[in-house]
Amino acid sequence: MAIGLTTPQNLLAIEGIRLGVAAAGIRYPDRNDLVLIEIAEGSQCAAVFTKNAFCAAPVLVCREHLAKSAPRYLIINSGNANAGLGEAGMLASKDSCAAVAELMSCDAEAVLPFSTGVIGETFPTQTLIDGLPAVKESLLADNWLPAAEAIMTTDTIAKGMSERVSIDGKNINITGMAKGSGMIRPDMATMLAYIATDANVSGELLEQALKQAVNDSFNRITVDGDTSTNDACLLLATGKAGNEKITDADSEQARQLFAAVAKVAKHLSESIIRDAEGVTKLITIAVEQGGNEAECDAVAFTVAHSPLVKTAFFAGDPNWGRILAAVGRAGLDSLDVDKVDIYLDDVCIVKQGGRDPSYTEEAGQAVMQQEMITVKISLARGNATTSVQTSDLSYDYVRINAEYRS
Amino acid sequence: MAIGLTTPQNLLAIEGIRLGVAAAGIRYPDRNDLVLIEIAEGSQCAAVFTKNAFCAAPVLVCREHLAKSAPRYLIINSGNANAGLGEAGMLASKDSCAAVAELMSCDAEAVLPFSTGVIGETFPTQTLIDGLPAVKESLLADNWLPAAEAIMTTDTIAKGMSERVSIDGKNINITGMAKGSGMIRPDMATMLAYIATDANVSGELLEQALKQAVNDSFNRITVDGDTSTNDACLLLATGKAGNEKITDADSEQARQLFAAVAKVAKHLSESIIRDAEGVTKLITIAVEQGGNEAECDAVAFTVAHSPLVKTAFFAGDPNWGRILAAVGRAGLDSLDVDKVDIYLDDVCIVKQGGRDPSYTEEAGQAVMQQEMITVKISLARGNATTSVQTSDLSYDYVRINAEYRS
Repeated sequence: MAIGLTTPQNLLAIEGIRLGVAAAGIRYPDRNDLVLIEIAEGSQCAAVFTKNAFCAAPVLVCREHLAKSAPRYLIINSGNANAGLGEAGMLASKDSCAAVAELMSCDAEAVLPFSTGVIGETFPTQTLIDGLPAVKESLLADNWLPAAEAIMTTDTIAKGMSERVSIDGKNINITGMAKGSGMIRPDMATMLAYIATDANVSGELLEQALKQAVNDSFNRITVDGDTSTNDACLLLATGKAGNEKITDADSEQARQLFAAVAKVAKHLSESIIRDAEGVTKLITIAVEQGGNEAECDAVAFTVAHSPLVKTAFFAGDPNWGRILAAVGRAGLDSLDVDKVDIYLDDVCIVKQGGRDPSYTEEAGQAVMQQEMITVKISLARGNATTSVQTSDLSYDYVRINAEYRS
Repeated sequence: MAIGLTTPQNLLAIEGIRLGVAAAGIRYPDRNDLVLIEIAEGSQCAAVFTKNAFCAAPVLVCREHLAKSAPRYLIINSGNANAGLGEAGMLASKDSCAAVAELMSCDAEAVLPFSTGVIGETFPTQTLIDGLPAVKESLLADNWLPAAEAIMTTDTIAKGMSERVSIDGKNINITGMAKGSGMIRPDMATMLAYIATDANVSGELLEQALKQAVNDSFNRITVDGDTSTNDACLLLATGKAGNEKITDADSEQARQLFAAVAKVAKHLSESIIRDAEGVTKLITIAVEQGGNEAECDAVAFTVAHSPLVKTAFFAGDPNWGRILAAVGRAGLDSLDVDKVDIYLDDVCIVKQGGRDPSYTEEAGQAVMQQEMITVKISLARGNATTSVQTSDLSYDYVRINAEYRS
C-alpha cells in the first residue's frame, strides 16, 4: 500500500481547462480508462518526453503534432501503452487524434495522444473512439480527481496536488496530476504527468519552468531503473488569471511561479515513489561532498537500483555492507574509500570507510523500522550534492510484476 | 533450487595441491566453513580480483602478498566477508595469515586470505585461528568436493569441474571450484573461484589463460548487478604433470591448455547462475550485429538487470515489451529501433522494432515454460556479438536476501 498518501482533496479547477472521463473498456472492466482534456485557445504548452530509444507511438505523434500546432485537446488512455506495435501503433494514435478532432471540431494536429499500460498488445482503436462521445459529455473544469483516477494502471491511489500563489495581486492556481508505480526511472519525465496553471506566462518561460521542475522531481526518482517507453510530462498555462504576462526569468513573478510549479512536480514525483509497486519503505538517497553532480548521481542511482540494498530495506535490516558495496561499484574514478561516511538518518553507520566504532545494531534497526528513511553518503571529494528517492524491493513487487498481464 | 546441477563427482586431484577443511564455527553451526589449500613449491599463480572500490581486507592483503611472494597456502573462510571493517579488517586478515604461516612454517606473505559472507560484521579472527590445526590435519589431494562445499554461503549446491587434456603425450589435469549465488555481477572475477592444474606453464601464459577464461565466463554472468567486495579468481599451476614447459602463446600446447581452462571457468560461472539466489530460469541474453562489443554488452546487461524483465521470466510471461523497453534505455547512440529484431529461442517476437506479425502468445509461452531460455537481440549495426547469462527475479530471491542476516 502507498506510504502516507491519501486521495488528493480540493484539486483546484484551472480556468481554461476542462476534463472528461469515461469507461471505454480499453482493458479494465468497470472503471474509467479514458480522459479528454480540453485546453482553451491561446494557452501555452511545454512538454518533455522519455529518452528511451523505443518511444511509444503516442510519444512520436505528440512530438510531431507539437511541432506544428498548439494543442487544444489531450486524449489519454490507460490499459494499453500503444508501444512496440510499429506502423499499426502510429496509425492507432493518429486515428484516435483524428476522431477527437472530428468530434471537437479542431485540427487533428491540435490533439495530443497519450497511452499507458501493457506494451506490445494490439491497440483497440475503435474501442477508444467509441468512448469519445462519453468523455466529451462529461467535460468539466472540476474533474481533476476523476481524471487522475482514470489514468492509473498499477497505481493504488490517485496522485494530484494544487498550489495557489498571489502574483501582482492576482491569484494564480496550479493543479497537477500524475500516474506511475512501476517501470519508473524517468529520464526527462515520468510515465504521465499533467500540470496546468491559469498564469499568463511566455512559452519560453513555461519551458524553463517545466525543465527545472522535472529535473528536481521526476528525474530524481526510481522504482526499478526501467525507463518507460511512454514517459511524458506536460505543463499547460491558460493565461486566464489576468496577471501581467510573465516574460522575465529573473523577475520576482517568475521566481514565484517557478517555485509553485516545482512544488507541485515534487509532490507528484514523491507520490509516485510512495505508491511504487510493492513499496513498504520510502528511501531517500542523499549524496554529499561529491566532486560534481554527475558522480553524486552515479552513487545515488547505483545504491537506489541495488536489489540487495532494496531487499535489505524491505527486511528492515540495517545491512550497511550492501550500501557500501554499491557505492564501491558506482564507477567513481579513484574514490578514496577511507574517507566515505554513511548515515541512516542521523545514525552514523560507516565512518571513514569502515564500521563506525560507536554504531550499534539497535540504533540501525530503530531507523529501519520507519516507513521513511534517508541514507546519507558523504564522499569527501567536493561540494556537489544530489538526492534521489526510491522504494524497497518486496514480495509484492515480484507478485505485481509477475501477474501484471494475467 | 539450482537448475540442472548435481553435486560434482570425480573431481580430479591435482598433483602438488592438497586441501583441508574444518568446521571452525565462523558463523554456521555444524558445517565446514574453513579451507586451507597447500600449493607445492615452485608453482605458478595468476589471480584477478574485484574492481569494486570497496575491496575487502583479504583482497587488499592478497594483492600485497602476491606482489612479494609466490603463494604456498590459501586460507579461505565462509560466513564473514571481512569487508567494511577498516583497519580491524586488515589486522584480522594479516593475523590469520601469520597464524597459518607459523603452523605451516612459511612466510606470512606466502599465505593468501579469502573471505566470503556477511559484510561489516566483526571478524572472528581467533575462531579462525583455533580452526587451523583441524584444517591442517585434514590436508588431502582428494579434498576438492569438501572444499567446494565449505566455501558455500547462500549457494544450495557445490560447484566444481575437472578436465583432462593430453599435451605432448602427458595427461594434464585441471580442476576448479567456485562459490557464488547472490551479489553477483563479477567485474574481473566472481565471488571466489579456484582453478588448479598440474600443467608446466610459464607465469606469463598462466596470467593470459586466466584473463581470457574470466572474460568469457565470470565476467559474463550477473544475478543482481551487485559487484561483490570480495571477488577473487585464482589459477594455480603446479607443473607436476611433467610436460615440457609451455611458454609460447601461439603454440598448439598453449591453445589446448587455454581451451581446457576456459571450459572449466565457463562451467563454474554457468553453475553460479544455475544456482543463483531464488533462480527458476537460466536466461542467456545474446546480442548480435552490434557496432562493437561494448554496445552489445550495454544492451545485454541492461536487459539482464531489468527487474521487469526478470519478473516476467519468473512468471513465464513472454512480456517482450519489457525486453524492448530495456533495449531502448541501454544508452546506444542513435539506435535505429526500426531495425531491431528480438527472439525467444527460435521464436521471433519483435521484427524490425515491432511485434512480429507471425508471433503468437502460444509460441512465446511455450518457450517461457522452459528452464533455459535464450533471448536473442539483433541490432543491425555491425558484426559484434556478446552474450551474458542471468537468472530470473523470484519471491525466493526477495526471501533469501530479506532473511540473509537473520
